[in-house]
Amino acid sequence: MKVKDIGEFGLIDKISKKSINKDVIVDIGDDAAVYKTEKGLQVITTDSLIEGDHFSKEYFTPCQIGKKAIEINVSDIAAMGAVPKHVLVSLAIPNDLDVKFVEELYEGMWGVCDKYNLDIIGGNMTHCNIIVISISLIGEVKKNNLCLRCGAKPGDLIFVSGYLGNGRAGLRLFQENVDGFNNIRKKYLEPKSQFDFSKKIAPYVNSMIDVSDGLASEINHICDESECGAIIYKDKIPINEDVRILAKKLKEDEYTYALFGGEDFQLVYTVSKERLSNIDGFLIGEITKNKKILLSNKGKYEEIINKGYDHFSNYK
Amino acid sequence: MKVKDIGEFGLIDKISKKSINKDVIVDIGDDAAVYKTEKGLQVITTDSLIEGDHFSKEYFTPCQIGKKAIEINVSDIAAMGAVPKHVLVSLAIPNDLDVKFVEELYEGMWGVCDKYNLDIIGGNMTHCNIIVISISLIGEVKKNNLCLRCGAKPGDLIFVSGYLGNGRAGLRLFQENVDGFNNIRKKYLEPKSQFDFSKKIAPYVNSMIDVSDGLASEINHICDESECGAIIYKDKIPINEDVRILAKKLKEDEYTYALFGGEDFQLVYTVSKERLSNIDGFLIGEITKNKKILLSNKGKYEEIINKGYDHFSNYK
Repeated sequence: MKVKDIGEFGLIDKISKKSINKDVIVDIGDDAAVYKTEKGLQVITTDSLIEGDHFSKEYFTPCQIGKKAIEINVSDIAAMGAVPKHVLVSLAIPNDLDVKFVEELYEGMWGVCDKYNLDIIGGNMTHCNIIVISISLIGEVKKNNLCLRCGAKPGDLIFVSGYLGNGRAGLRLFQENVDGFNNIRKKYLEPKSQFDFSKKIAPYVNSMIDVSDGLASEINHICDESECGAIIYKDKIPINEDVRILAKKLKEDEYTYALFGGEDFQLVYTVSKERLSNIDGFLIGEITKNKKILLSNKGKYEEIINKGYDHFSNYK
Repeated sequence: MKVKDIGEFGLIDKISKKSINKDVIVDIGDDAAVYKTEKGLQVITTDSLIEGDHFSKEYFTPCQIGKKAIEINVSDIAAMGAVPKHVLVSLAIPNDLDVKFVEELYEGMWGVCDKYNLDIIGGNMTHCNIIVISISLIGEVKKNNLCLRCGAKPGDLIFVSGYLGNGRAGLRLFQENVDGFNNIRKKYLEPKSQFDFSKKIAPYVNSMIDVSDGLASEINHICDESECGAIIYKDKIPINEDVRILAKKLKEDEYTYALFGGEDFQLVYTVSKERLSNIDGFLIGEITKNKKILLSNKGKYEEIINKGYDHFSNYK
């Protein structure tokens, strides 16, 4: 049996094990891990950018690659309701890569670090035939702000922090060599975490996750971990006008971009009805006791089966 | 200018920046980074194993690759005088890799984690054409046990925790298809950190580092960071008899293995003369005020210029 046959989530099931140390609060299966120190809760996440899979030197400048590497990890920390603090960079590069490329890559990383008041405190460098950037990001979180995937409750309303579908739209733009659409292009090349947004809502939400693999996949994670289901109102999913125009031009479906595309780095979160006054964002659905995940469209319900972007299955 | 032209250390100089957060005690340039929490000092390190560079599926079983991935990171934590606690695994793999391979890889990792009482608390998985395993390891250290590269003082004696040269000897064994030498083979395929040894000596040493890139490179790091020099007594460098025999058979020099080979994962440390009674290991030299690094051989001195294994220059 090959990796692509069971996919990312099948694989994670096979290799996970319960933590033995009592100070581990959250282990494999959320946006970041959480462990206790006397100072409070520390969170840590790790994510890799692989040349050819997550970026192409044709589309991205070295500086943009560096920015993206940090932003996507900050996005994971923000999705926990936490504050990022320290960065480690494990970099593997070909030996005939230009030194200028590496300098600009780090300029991009340091630039985003300055924005969030982070330090790159360590890392390592080694040789590889392609560029692999692995980032580990440590943060801190107050107990009351900690947002897990497992906290959703039937009756919770589901929100998203901003427009979806841009991640996939941007990729399609480059793949199909389409001119124009500069807004989509810029957001694709320079994605931003929703850290500031997260700070405002974290004390009030029951569960949260960031959109890295598509809305369907993220809702599925929340429902899986919270042992519940969801109804998503298709016409409430916020999609920018230019993404709709591009989809139409390419004879594709903008809702497929939003549901199954990924790399939007918006936040998806669920909130009890009593706490709605504290919450910003787009209301897109409701958590249900029934464990199915349904897409509601003009009075009709359709089950969302495809669980979004799978890093292995999508390479079949 | 290419990466191979300035090498790993030239590159690190170019991309490092002083930390802005006051709780960072040690940043880029030691075996691990150190930052303060109210509980005490936390250390964190990261290291990647790249297929083709750090392991070959021809030589290593998946379980051995997993073991090595954890051991080399524990080795970095041990070199700080610290105790490892939590592991993150960032794994990039081809989608046609066998699931069994991944399961055995994690079996190897979990096995070593159990030995050191560690948990794999998080990570991520993604697609890549080759296997890339990036490990981040968090640990804790008491202030009195913290061993940095920068603490060596003129007059300190230099020790090594065990025999050197096996790392390179093992690699040569496989490269040249030599039969026998099972001890060398086993140590190469299943390297072990010197964590237990480190616990005993950490309170008494002035500086410490682990041997990942060869003795010459590690001594150079200590001298660089401590602004001093060293004399190494060639005939005191501990090299196993079977490594000597293999080197002779291949018409190579066993001291080149020890000085410039790497992947021995022994500890090199310096100690004030007053504290010798607390120390175990092999005495191999002395720290000097004169900043040269000299190899003393039967009354003759030779400067050690080659700074050991460079991950880029060695691929020219």
